[in-house]
Amino acid sequence: MIVMRTPKGWTGIKTLHGKTIEGNYLSHDIPAKDPFNDEEQFQAVCTWLESYKIGELLDENDAIKKELIDTYPKGDRAMGRNPRTSPDAYKLNHPDLASLVVQFDKSGDKLISPTEVGGLYLAELVKLNPSTFRVFSPDELESNKLDKVFNSTYRNFQWNEEMANRGGRVTEILSEHNCQGWMQGYTLTGRYALFPSYETFLGIITTMMIQYAKFIKLAGETNWRKKEPSLNYIQTSTLWRQEHNGYSHQDPMFSNNMVNMKHELMRIFYPPDANTFLYTISDCMSSLNRDNLIVGTKKEMPIFLNGPDAKAHFEAGLGVWKWLCTDDGATPDVVIVGCGNETNFEAVAAAHVLKQDFPELRVRFVNVIDIMVLDSQRKHPNSLTIEKYHEIFTEDKPVIFNFHGYPSLIHQLLFGKNHDNRVHVLGYIEEGTTTTPFDMLVRNKASRYDIMTLAIEKVTKSKPELASKGSSLIEKYRAEVKKHGEYIRKHGKDPKHLSTGKVSEIVDKDF
Amino acid sequence: MIVMRTPKGWTGIKTLHGKTIEGNYLSHDIPAKDPFNDEEQFQAVCTWLESYKIGELLDENDAIKKELIDTYPKGDRAMGRNPRTSPDAYKLNHPDLASLVVQFDKSGDKLISPTEVGGLYLAELVKLNPSTFRVFSPDELESNKLDKVFNSTYRNFQWNEEMANRGGRVTEILSEHNCQGWMQGYTLTGRYALFPSYETFLGIITTMMIQYAKFIKLAGETNWRKKEPSLNYIQTSTLWRQEHNGYSHQDPMFSNNMVNMKHELMRIFYPPDANTFLYTISDCMSSLNRDNLIVGTKKEMPIFLNGPDAKAHFEAGLGVWKWLCTDDGATPDVVIVGCGNETNFEAVAAAHVLKQDFPELRVRFVNVIDIMVLDSQRKHPNSLTIEKYHEIFTEDKPVIFNFHGYPSLIHQLLFGKNHDNRVHVLGYIEEGTTTTPFDMLVRNKASRYDIMTLAIEKVTKSKPELASKGSSLIEKYRAEVKKHGEYIRKHGKDPKHLSTGKVSEIVDKDF
Repeated sequence: MIVMRTPKGWTGIKTLHGKTIEGNYLSHDIPAKDPFNDEEQFQAVCTWLESYKIGELLDENDAIKKELIDTYPKGDRAMGRNPRTSPDAYKLNHPDLASLVVQFDKSGDKLISPTEVGGLYLAELVKLNPSTFRVFSPDELESNKLDKVFNSTYRNFQWNEEMANRGGRVTEILSEHNCQGWMQGYTLTGRYALFPSYETFLGIITTMMIQYAKFIKLAGETNWRKKEPSLNYIQTSTLWRQEHNGYSHQDPMFSNNMVNMKHELMRIFYPPDANTFLYTISDCMSSLNRDNLIVGTKKEMPIFLNGPDAKAHFEAGLGVWKWLCTDDGATPDVVIVGCGNETNFEAVAAAHVLKQDFPELRVRFVNVIDIMVLDSQRKHPNSLTIEKYHEIFTEDKPVIFNFHGYPSLIHQLLFGKNHDNRVHVLGYIEEGTTTTPFDMLVRNKASRYDIMTLAIEKVTKSKPELASKGSSLIEKYRAEVKKHGEYIRKHGKDPKHLSTGKVSEIVDKDF
Repeated sequence: MIVMRTPKGWTGIKTLHGKTIEGNYLSHDIPAKDPFNDEEQFQAVCTWLESYKIGELLDENDAIKKELIDTYPKGDRAMGRNPRTSPDAYKLNHPDLASLVVQFDKSGDKLISPTEVGGLYLAELVKLNPSTFRVFSPDELESNKLDKVFNSTYRNFQWNEEMANRGGRVTEILSEHNCQGWMQGYTLTGRYALFPSYETFLGIITTMMIQYAKFIKLAGETNWRKKEPSLNYIQTSTLWRQEHNGYSHQDPMFSNNMVNMKHELMRIFYPPDANTFLYTISDCMSSLNRDNLIVGTKKEMPIFLNGPDAKAHFEAGLGVWKWLCTDDGATPDVVIVGCGNETNFEAVAAAHVLKQDFPELRVRFVNVIDIMVLDSQRKHPNSLTIEKYHEIFTEDKPVIFNFHGYPSLIHQLLFGKNHDNRVHVLGYIEEGTTTTPFDMLVRNKASRYDIMTLAIEKVTKSKPELASKGSSLIEKYRAEVKKHGEYIRKHGKDPKHLSTGKVSEIVDKDF
């Protein structure tokens, strides 16, 4: 490394009206502010600019001399046009998803960590693309449960002679800035990359993500630049599961910042189980010129969708889960929407419990995996038309949307869609501490009880015949929340039936 | 400075099942994952935890020994309770705003830079609070036109013996992280601080702002902590005036991130002229336990409000500007809203031109200075009730909101207020480059022409009798935009009547 230290404003104006400019703060901004009216400033600017001897580079017509232009790289040798920097040169070989899909008997009754299945996918990806795919990770992949990738590769340690230069495709460094920079540089060579991180730590590189999003926007406006592989982020260890790290680690701001960039370039996915996680990561890895964020979890989650259903659900971006609906979702009184992992599970639990406790209240259940399809700007290939939006969310029924992150993100996407005072978005409202996962949901009013209570309150407004049963159920739920709170404070953990688990174990009559 | 380098996981578990733990990546996260079922892990954890000799600190009841508790600082000596760290000890002396207010004859016809007036206020503030107020600045105050503060203080240079330790209250360093850290530390001693910055550069310290917002939220929940002076940011050189720096410097994301924090602690102000800027900065400087962001401009802007009106407008957070309305704003067809500097000026221009071109189309003009009053969460002391919201924005007329930043910010604040598909938010939609200020507005569809065209389109839907005149005006405006574009490309600058200037010069019939 060579460190070169120069005076501030070096080779610029030396002094002006007796004041030192070069090497002084005065050389910042505009060192000579009024050359048109001040002769000394005019002369200083002339001397400065003439020192570059631009004239030597120009011909008699003040155009750049031909001999200089001839030194430019031509055609495919031009920077950004070289075919060796295009993904065409490094076609991605796709793992066979069918062999990785998790099999199960009944929706919601088998548990598995989505990132663990993702790790198996990555191991296959490395095998099939041994020199054109890299993982840049600021934290232990083990901690994110993506460590199955080590079935087929190594960490690329540099400090350990034994391990160095063995071709490991996983580069770990505890610097998100480095990971981002490396991912940008690597994908710009036409190769493929992934950056897994704790949710909150991606915040650190928000401005780098923004600047790169500006770059791909502009690059896409040229007619000579080829598309490059996307930037791919996986967020695990999200805000809902920070029972050890607490409030400082409860922060989903990265997704909000992505949504302010050009919508056609941005994708934010909330796969609700391991199989949808598989289809999501596969789509992201092979996409071009996008910023992809996958919000996953390393914790065990129930599997909801088999292979073909997961594929169809991912491709649509959202869908009705009939097995959680009253009469498969026909003519609902309320639409309950899940988006995320823990927040979707709470929505599932709410629909499941309401079906048993209050079958007269007709529920439709919707899961949203790709929030950009909700966007009113309609820049997404699968953006919902207003007709499709009404088909899924109805035209006038209350909608209770339990979202992974800040409700503001859904508010801004849905704004202008229709009469919005029937849509209630629950999510993270900056109530945090080191506590159990269920207590976090209660504190942020995003638990199954909040969903059920709100559903009953909103539906009974237009169906007074259900009001009496509704209010006694709300009383019952209030008592349960109180009892659970006492249990949590006493035992320091959640009652089992409130933890993310099998759907068949959501109701514990004996608790 | 002492640099101490220790092995990772130092003093923890040395080895486990033959693997090195201390000094290895395995000491991160949970080094022994299953001590309940694995005897070697259990022993390793015991040896590790016993090494802290906790028993020596406990009495026979496993409580902390009294002799240790007696060493705690008591009462006012406890950290965070010391009266010398409270603003009570350093009461802010307020400059007399009446003497700083800019006088003028007619609204919109005198030009002055808001930050220049702000600089005069800061000079007074330093004079009255010579040892309890500091400015931390990453960029030249001169570049932000706040340099009038040097009327009464100095830069606190450290590298220059002549200038060092002269008590200068302005600390400049080209590191936003440093400025943020210094401001946090200084205000936590009960003293007052200000951090002026280019708009885009505040993005760099977003996660620091977020962590501090979490801290003041939690600090406010204790019953023993006193309130501390607020963090105060001034953004100048905003995205609309980056004609030299371009797209990389066009980024209002900091404000969006503030709004996801607890609303009661956050304030974001868009003072539209120098006098409102004065009242805004004065309120921010004397506030406690808040994060205040003032979005200003260093460029010359027309003055709209005299002293008393500016004070009342600031306190209400928004208001109708009758002189720009048809019949003082009675029974409008459309509500035009300005928020920001350049974007407010465009809204002013749109209302002004429509009144002349299309007097049958009844306009009400509203300026919003404090966007948090729009917030549906109603955590702001002046939050609009739904009745007040309807009084200002009507219940059913189209509203065209020309906003300084991303429209998403207004979308999320207004969500759920009422039928939102009548509200059209214009603003920065990530279209940027190095170009003239007016061309920036055109590219982002936030110019006076966009406002006027949208107003005509929306109003004529329900007033077909105005449709014919409306469409010929839209044709005329389209032709003007085209002509202006040609002028801008030819001359590299905006036509004078399109630049921010006197309202009386907005219309140039001869152009």
